[in-house]
Amino acid sequence: MPMIFETVVTTQSPAGEVHLAPMGIRYEGDEVLMMPFKPSRTLDNVLATGRAVLNLSTDVRVFAGCVTGRRDWPTLPLDGFAGRRLATALAHVELELVRPQDDALRPVLAMRRRREVVHRGFPGFNRAQAAVVEGAVLVSRLGMLPRDKVDSEMAYLQIAIDKTAGPHELEAWEWLCEAVERFHAGAQGAA
Amino acid sequence: MPMIFETVVTTQSPAGEVHLAPMGIRYEGDEVLMMPFKPSRTLDNVLATGRAVLNLSTDVRVFAGCVTGRRDWPTLPLDGFAGRRLATALAHVELELVRPQDDALRPVLAMRRRREVVHRGFPGFNRAQAAVVEGAVLVSRLGMLPRDKVDSEMAYLQIAIDKTAGPHELEAWEWLCEAVERFHAGAQGAA
Repeated sequence: MPMIFETVVTTQSPAGEVHLAPMGIRYEGDEVLMMPFKPSRTLDNVLATGRAVLNLSTDVRVFAGCVTGRRDWPTLPLDGFAGRRLATALAHVELELVRPQDDALRPVLAMRRRREVVHRGFPGFNRAQAAVVEGAVLVSRLGMLPRDKVDSEMAYLQIAIDKTAGPHELEAWEWLCEAVERFHAGAQGAA
Repeated sequence: MPMIFETVVTTQSPAGEVHLAPMGIRYEGDEVLMMPFKPSRTLDNVLATGRAVLNLSTDVRVFAGCVTGRRDWPTLPLDGFAGRRLATALAHVELELVRPQDDALRPVLAMRRRREVVHRGFPGFNRAQAAVVEGAVLVSRLGMLPRDKVDSEMAYLQIAIDKTAGPHELEAWEWLCEAVERFHAGAQGAA
């Protein structure tokens, strides 16, 4: 069973437009494997430019924001690499495409690490951050899950939010709760 | 509401015996606040020596190990600081006691950062690691929780284990499952 890490991948279109997407990735030897579901702007951008930036971040607003329509997060240019990194990343890895493996549903992009830069040390696990990551997974699958399962899991995750969250985690959690409510009220915009 | 980070604190007794304990800490300005529950060897050691090492680690075997009787984890000596750090720490912070505030149940130790060293970058969130941290919290409270609550939470956490764990997370999870089983079978050694 491959170990999966939740990260944020930044790519650019050939015209330079920045795209930011949460992505579960795998580390395999010296390579980073990205497996975007089709259709995917990340996939299009990597195939077109051969490049991506892996952002290792504990800023859970980005994870909750991207599944609730908030994709505009500050990025910074990189030194000698045509790409941008998430401004709040603890570390980033500059990646070059070495082996795209196409698939009807979920291609695998094997990427080579060009350079890795650590900006700040990991501050420790925060249970509320983990709850936001789980909540973002739930929100991204609202159309596939029964309502009582969603409600009971959100109630469980709320405990860690109440006990250990900071302002960023509370804000991210509120976006997720709003998205669940909107979806269940039958309005658009949640998924 | 203060944001809490789950870390591993290493201390030494005046005789040099190393003690390692998972601990939820707070960052307040430039200080690190530790709040050990009495009785606590970490508390005794910090009051006696004035020092501690904060380990920022994603090695969840240490968290699950410490609540299931496995406290012997490799540590390394530090340069110019009488203390040791967890060998697998992503980063560590050398701490000096500035203000102990006693309390019958839970004293607050305000610690000053002497030096912070980053050893490796954060590799990204892993949902199985978060599940192990939650499971370790459950196992540390088995005596206070109803069995059906423990069983349903462990079943929920199992999902992230099945989907995203690596070998370390699987090993840590097995220790926690064994501890729950032992406790419910009425044997000693779980709490």
